[in-house]
Amino acid sequence: MQSSGKQQKTKLREEAILEKAREVIIAEGTGALKMPELAKLSQVSVGTLYRHFESKQDIIAALASRALDARHQKLKLVKEQFQEPDERYLGVIMLDFLFNIAHPDVFQIEMACASPAFWEETQSFRHQSHQAVAKDISSFLQSVCSEISGPEADLKHLATGIWAFVSGMSLVWYGMPSKQQDNLEEALCFLRMHLINFIKGYGLQLSDAGGTFSHLEKHFLATKSQWLWALKGKPANDSH
Amino acid sequence: MQSSGKQQKTKLREEAILEKAREVIIAEGTGALKMPELAKLSQVSVGTLYRHFESKQDIIAALASRALDARHQKLKLVKEQFQEPDERYLGVIMLDFLFNIAHPDVFQIEMACASPAFWEETQSFRHQSHQAVAKDISSFLQSVCSEISGPEADLKHLATGIWAFVSGMSLVWYGMPSKQQDNLEEALCFLRMHLINFIKGYGLQLSDAGGTFSHLEKHFLATKSQWLWALKGKPANDSH
Repeated sequence: MQSSGKQQKTKLREEAILEKAREVIIAEGTGALKMPELAKLSQVSVGTLYRHFESKQDIIAALASRALDARHQKLKLVKEQFQEPDERYLGVIMLDFLFNIAHPDVFQIEMACASPAFWEETQSFRHQSHQAVAKDISSFLQSVCSEISGPEADLKHLATGIWAFVSGMSLVWYGMPSKQQDNLEEALCFLRMHLINFIKGYGLQLSDAGGTFSHLEKHFLATKSQWLWALKGKPANDSH
Repeated sequence: MQSSGKQQKTKLREEAILEKAREVIIAEGTGALKMPELAKLSQVSVGTLYRHFESKQDIIAALASRALDARHQKLKLVKEQFQEPDERYLGVIMLDFLFNIAHPDVFQIEMACASPAFWEETQSFRHQSHQAVAKDISSFLQSVCSEISGPEADLKHLATGIWAFVSGMSLVWYGMPSKQQDNLEEALCFLRMHLINFIKGYGLQLSDAGGTFSHLEKHFLATKSQWLWALKGKPANDSH
């Protein structure tokens, strides 16, 4: 019992540290994250901070894994709430993109992890657990694809294509000058034409992609709070 | 005359600082770049370093702009060396991707810039000059596309699609576990099927995309040194 109480305390402290780290990243970017300052913000000693996380990269990795997991949970909601395979498929791609646009901090954290050198700086269990979450979301994407593709489709290839498509579109969106980066409506307009090309290219037959897209677009925008979310993993009684 | 000599000296010193910064990034990633250490490595005082670059972000931005410009020059070579529009088009996309795979430091630098918060930390002229380089490469992509698309094609849309496609594919490549990240041959195999889907989706009629792709693939791999390059902008007599 005592040991589980201690585990619980450790977990809560890590949550608190991660939440502070996220606040720094939102305000100033991953480059501004520094261990001594983070210790101060989290009200722990530098030694305690390093007992929880060996490096700044460990913190970014932990945030990335929980972001990917949160993304996965929301994408699963699309699958549960929509009945039609076309809606599920398009809805998952659209929400995956909206996730990046509505949460620049998440996008930035994921970009930081997407470099070859990054994982060399983290503890190996961080990389393993991140890969496990990535594998889960990839299996999920494959299951969504399986409902609309023919029996001979290469589902892994298709899921890889979605991942690349959404990442690429998000990168381009953030690279565009003079855009209101967080204008979800405009971002979806931008996505639409490219998504229709993507579907065509991968040979998927959706009966009315344009109609389904605009129906989902309205739905997502009208019920934003249901679909979008922060990275928070802190207990519900926290006021942040 | 004296003033131009001074300008020359300033330029050389900036080149030397940027080259050192790039070495740090290659070895340890953008996260490891720190101004005091960089000053020491570049054999200038911290004050001098800050006179040239106001922040770490300014340095990354300068490296990103020169990387984008170097990329542009190499892509232009494809256009000049190949006569057939199909070869030019596919060659540009393939080399754009190879550039990311062969130069993980470049890719990492570009990822660091692709966050909404990044440019807020740089001097505004850095952002402007980066946007100018980005605009040049976008016009170039549009001109390559214009040779193979119909008269009604939206060239800007097509160029945006290429940019997103190559970025997304590179991200996925770097995110894949257990790959030899720098294996160019495997990377091109990975690209091939997705590129063919991309062409299909955007409605481009290439007479023999598969054949042209494999011909270009052999050519690029056999003449790597001609197509790939480092970011170095230092004078030729430097031994690095």
